Amino acid sequence: MPLIHSWVTSANSADTDFPLNNLPYGVFSTDQLDPRCGVAIGDMILDMGQAEAQGIIDLTDEPLFELPFWNDLMEQGPAVWTALRNRLTALLSKGSKDQHLIEPLLLPVADATLHMPLVVSEFTDFYAGRHHATNVGTMFRGPENALPPNWLHMPIGYNGRASSVVVSGTDIRRPWGQLKSPDHDTPAFLPSRRFDMELEMGAIVGMASDGPLTVDQADAAIFGYVLLNDWSARDIQAWEYQPLGPFQAKATATSISPWIVTKAALDPFRTSTPEREVPLLDHLKDTGPMLYDIDLTAALAPEGQTPTTLTRTNYREMYYSAAQQLAHHSTSGCPMNVGDLLGSGTISGPTKPERGSLLELSWGGKDPLTLDTGDTRTFLEDRDTVTLSGHAQGDGYRIGFGTCAGRIMSAHATPYRP
Amino acid sequence: MPLIHSWVTSANSADTDFPLNNLPYGVFSTDQLDPRCGVAIGDMILDMGQAEAQGIIDLTDEPLFELPFWNDLMEQGPAVWTALRNRLTALLSKGSKDQHLIEPLLLPVADATLHMPLVVSEFTDFYAGRHHATNVGTMFRGPENALPPNWLHMPIGYNGRASSVVVSGTDIRRPWGQLKSPDHDTPAFLPSRRFDMELEMGAIVGMASDGPLTVDQADAAIFGYVLLNDWSARDIQAWEYQPLGPFQAKATATSISPWIVTKAALDPFRTSTPEREVPLLDHLKDTGPMLYDIDLTAALAPEGQTPTTLTRTNYREMYYSAAQQLAHHSTSGCPMNVGDLLGSGTISGPTKPERGSLLELSWGGKDPLTLDTGDTRTFLEDRDTVTLSGHAQGDGYRIGFGTCAGRIMSAHATPYRP
Repeated sequence: MPLIHSWVTSANSADTDFPLNNLPYGVFSTDQLDPRCGVAIGDMILDMGQAEAQGIIDLTDEPLFELPFWNDLMEQGPAVWTALRNRLTALLSKGSKDQHLIEPLLLPVADATLHMPLVVSEFTDFYAGRHHATNVGTMFRGPENALPPNWLHMPIGYNGRASSVVVSGTDIRRPWGQLKSPDHDTPAFLPSRRFDMELEMGAIVGMASDGPLTVDQADAAIFGYVLLNDWSARDIQAWEYQPLGPFQAKATATSISPWIVTKAALDPFRTSTPEREVPLLDHLKDTGPMLYDIDLTAALAPEGQTPTTLTRTNYREMYYSAAQQLAHHSTSGCPMNVGDLLGSGTISGPTKPERGSLLELSWGGKDPLTLDTGDTRTFLEDRDTVTLSGHAQGDGYRIGFGTCAGRIMSAHATPYRP
Repeated sequence: MPLIHSWVTSANSADTDFPLNNLPYGVFSTDQLDPRCGVAIGDMILDMGQAEAQGIIDLTDEPLFELPFWNDLMEQGPAVWTALRNRLTALLSKGSKDQHLIEPLLLPVADATLHMPLVVSEFTDFYAGRHHATNVGTMFRGPENALPPNWLHMPIGYNGRASSVVVSGTDIRRPWGQLKSPDHDTPAFLPSRRFDMELEMGAIVGMASDGPLTVDQADAAIFGYVLLNDWSARDIQAWEYQPLGPFQAKATATSISPWIVTKAALDPFRTSTPEREVPLLDHLKDTGPMLYDIDLTAALAPEGQTPTTLTRTNYREMYYSAAQQLAHHSTSGCPMNVGDLLGSGTISGPTKPERGSLLELSWGGKDPLTLDTGDTRTFLEDRDTVTLSGHAQGDGYRIGFGTCAGRIMSAHATPYRP
């Protein structure tokens, strides 16, 4: 599919994240405007609340866009999702007769504050990248037992904490927790010393269900994707995770990018999962290409310094697609809701510069990284900023996700109470 | 504290669960009335929506009770919680001058349908009963390694699935999942064969927070308690739980009793946690009695048969209080919200008839139980009904929880789709 030209000229640039082919959904505010739905086009945002109030976009009887989340649009289902995308494409295309109506409703992204684009119903994080699971397993259990026996048969996941999902740009306070060093008999309550990032994609469930879904039904239920950084306290996790899995180690924060890139926008970039080492059971079998070819990077900048790229990887490295994850999630009859967020798991490629976490990049802290600034890192230091970015590369355009950034604050920063 | 006499005569009986000292909060409907808040008193329900509409209960400017959940009342905070309890006690006390106003707003519990009493924000399940953890650990890892090394230092927990929490009386469909038997190389997708119940209490968070809470702050933030049955597929769990903990094994359903018994009602029954084998770290130290002396039973009835009591235990058997669980839950800075539900973990006492799950009662299925009907059970069969009940025994009255019941339906029952 070629670039669709827009009368918003910045949307026709080969290096914008937001050409007309993308049309990602976010929530913004300005000094004058309360938080409401917006669509990114080039370096501008279309105020969807105003477009709806003026009757230019008129999909349903009830208002959908003068709200600080996209959940109500998702609730309308795929026919309305498609109708909205078609209407926006027509309004913003070069030669649109409605340009004079829309032009007054655009404002520069640079003038807006971006908020969470959805109300997250529940958050689930998976462990579905094979290189990541192999790296972590090798570190903790040795190369012979790197992958748990179940790993090639199902996308391993755990329930995370929706209340801790925050939008890009939110500062992240280093967590306190119980740490137990091997040379002490008892734990101590201290700030985490091994606080880490995880480069992931998040899939957003757009249709509710209350019974097992096929992989095809699951793919149809996904509304869109975001970048996701699942901040992780490795030392808290090491002490707490047996036998019931990660809990407080993963509960400080999970950052997501502010723009939901729809499944429709990513459709030209569908790609298959890797070859299967063992056949999947029928309910999880691939029925078509359900991963996406999305280049991903993570960069780290100490305060006031230029960022160093830590990793370059691609979403196609996942062993399981989000559709397979959602199908597995529903096997037990677990009700899934609009706004459920599924983290892919850390996305690492096969080589060292493709690793998606500092745990892997510094091999458990044994092999410090040297940044471009000359600083070294094993895990994150206070006031480091981590920035994820990603895009699918089309012919002369790209479908970008913007960035997902977070800065680490001291464990003693407010609101620390006790 | 003695019985407070009510002009609702059924509330003065020594064996009602709902004397005036209790005043538990639920949501009910009838053929004529949409779901709304109600308070149980003896064998009657007070229609709180009507009481508010008529101005008899008038705590805030915004309506709180013509809603199908108690979250909005909880949001008002402890001063309003206390004001409501005081007002209800005055209205329903023997000799109240307002009896003629309230009498028309009472209807028999028997004529009402009970619904979920709250919107569950997120659900966390703990593993904080020592006898249960010791029993399970002994089965899986042997008596020397029964308790994981972290267990005596923190309340181990994992995030569950709020979407699967249902009210007592909801049928529970036996889940499908990946099962892997030791004599097969690969798993199969089948209905669970080891589907179990877990006798627990649930604590409901009534105040939001966004940083670490002390144990005292956590206790103050708890609004009330319910009975909770965390249905568990032991065979799904055995295959899936390494390394990230239980996921689909616990996602089919969690049942709760329909009446929230407030912390205020339980206050006379506070009791201390057991003696500590190792000292807790300061942030988890007991600061007062925060468990409750609540007698608990679980019974099992095959379809059409009389129930057999499976277990008799008490909430005071927990090693950690709900306040300690909530304090631990917040250590990492995890934001907690009104409506968060914390499962205690299975409550087993020290002897066999006090065990709170079939896994323990049948010792992993090796030692079948014989029911009073002559049937035997290792795990649950289709159309078995499990009923939990519980009460704190006062002098001449009791603070009861009603029951928490669920019937097992076939794995092939609707809505099974694939």
